[in-house]
Amino acid sequence: MTMQGMDTPLTRLLGIRHPVIQAGMIWVSGARLAAAVSEAGGLGTLGAGSMRPDVFLDQVRKLRARTDKPWAVNLPVFYRHVPEIVPLALREGCRIFITSAGNPATWTPVLKDAGATVLHVVATARQAAKCEALGVDAVVAEGFEAGGHNGPDELTTMVLVPQVVRAVSLPVVAAGGIVDGRTMAAALALGAAGVQVGTRFACTVESSAHEAYKQAIVEAGEIDTVLALKSVMPVRLLKNAFWEQVRAAEARGASPEELRDLLGTGRPRQAIHLGALPDGEIEVGQAVGAIRDVPAAADVLAGMVDEARIVLQGLARL
Amino acid sequence: MTMQGMDTPLTRLLGIRHPVIQAGMIWVSGARLAAAVSEAGGLGTLGAGSMRPDVFLDQVRKLRARTDKPWAVNLPVFYRHVPEIVPLALREGCRIFITSAGNPATWTPVLKDAGATVLHVVATARQAAKCEALGVDAVVAEGFEAGGHNGPDELTTMVLVPQVVRAVSLPVVAAGGIVDGRTMAAALALGAAGVQVGTRFACTVESSAHEAYKQAIVEAGEIDTVLALKSVMPVRLLKNAFWEQVRAAEARGASPEELRDLLGTGRPRQAIHLGALPDGEIEVGQAVGAIRDVPAAADVLAGMVDEARIVLQGLARL
Repeated sequence: MTMQGMDTPLTRLLGIRHPVIQAGMIWVSGARLAAAVSEAGGLGTLGAGSMRPDVFLDQVRKLRARTDKPWAVNLPVFYRHVPEIVPLALREGCRIFITSAGNPATWTPVLKDAGATVLHVVATARQAAKCEALGVDAVVAEGFEAGGHNGPDELTTMVLVPQVVRAVSLPVVAAGGIVDGRTMAAALALGAAGVQVGTRFACTVESSAHEAYKQAIVEAGEIDTVLALKSVMPVRLLKNAFWEQVRAAEARGASPEELRDLLGTGRPRQAIHLGALPDGEIEVGQAVGAIRDVPAAADVLAGMVDEARIVLQGLARL
Repeated sequence: MTMQGMDTPLTRLLGIRHPVIQAGMIWVSGARLAAAVSEAGGLGTLGAGSMRPDVFLDQVRKLRARTDKPWAVNLPVFYRHVPEIVPLALREGCRIFITSAGNPATWTPVLKDAGATVLHVVATARQAAKCEALGVDAVVAEGFEAGGHNGPDELTTMVLVPQVVRAVSLPVVAAGGIVDGRTMAAALALGAAGVQVGTRFACTVESSAHEAYKQAIVEAGEIDTVLALKSVMPVRLLKNAFWEQVRAAEARGASPEELRDLLGTGRPRQAIHLGALPDGEIEVGQAVGAIRDVPAAADVLAGMVDEARIVLQGLARL
């Protein structure tokens, strides 16, 4: 790990070496993955959205024991345990929060008052401008390609990022579809100050996801994901038996209530944590077809940064 | 127009100065727009998919009178007049064809036997590999962002282009969401040898679209397009009264036949050619929110290439 750091407004804001954030992912990003990414010079993130407060406390302590470099906690605003997790996280020394899936006004004032750095995930330039007005420090502009919960307007990373960059003066982090150095280089060309990477880190040695979930990512082809449940809560997942049920229900005109019942609450855990793939919600990004192995997280990060630099240096001669 | 050319495998294949193709667009890209782009160093393209054979003959002769630089004809494979247009185009000296919206096996052998260069528009890496096996010279990898007809698998430009680049050894042209130098630079970072640009050229002085259509593009916001009619023939359009009708029909469970009847055949002409926007099919790309003016096509091209070069040179120092 002797590669040169890549200095951007994001690395300066967060105090990290490379402008790469590992996305907080439920059932995937515990202390082990977050520590590996932070130690490698990126920003590791605990995905608190699948943790009870006692589990969170255990994970945050394990993470602190493994690294003294910056790390973050992802808080999905709608998650019921967030009000208990926020004071715990602050007490345990968390300095960087990435809030998502909800209103930035809910937690930004509390977190900023406590002296923390706040990033919020947005799906439109309009939301980004709202974040800036609220005092958020940076926005994660997440495109239609991203796995898991997704915005209703379907703006892709290529379309969204430049418009967010024009709308705010904050550092903008591109998310959705970023899996390697080429896609990272493209995000930087769009004006991003860094990238947030989900599925590629979910499919690493240190990811706490079930091996069957990692294997499903490795085996997935280019057209194997879909943005499902658009009428209820859009979520990108791998096509499986559960998705076939969703599709059949939608085809017969199921109401939002029926779809919510079908979705239930435990399906991501079934797929990602327990490896029960047919009936689970296999949340993955659209670029899953580009992932073919299960490397160490540090190798993902180093390969991505090195390749991005080589691509950009080559193109400067055009 | 003194800017330096940008040399790539695409410019060498086509004999053009800058790796920018103006997309063939029905009711938009006649001789005037195609000539302006070719004269400025890109590849101008006649959109034959809205032309009767006599109109096509008139347009191709006007185009030849305006430029002696390379130009192309776009042939939507499903369009009923293509069998008459192909021999006319070959006789009138067309050397470059961009086939789309259909099977590449239909016209590639005929066009290659006549000595022409053939590009085919694809929406998956699998289709790109098929094109290479058939002898196609380059592929246009068109993402979910693109206006008009679109693939059913919803792969975005960011996800699609790198996978197509890995799947074939042909030059790959990125399409969908490309409107300026930043998005062009991103496409090159993804491995594309050039870009195909639609909506940005549709909203230029030389575009033959109705002024009301151009004004609708200028006024559109970031979330104003939608990929509609997915169950029949996916098409990206500006949300308007016609789209509301489509949405209402889909909500009440209309059959594919009913949707096809609602769509009819004349709706793109109504919107794009006649400017009857509420009832027409206003085909535009998702990046419409980034377009705020109606410049000359040559200025679009020069601005895009210059900005892409500045962006890439700046990033090489990271």
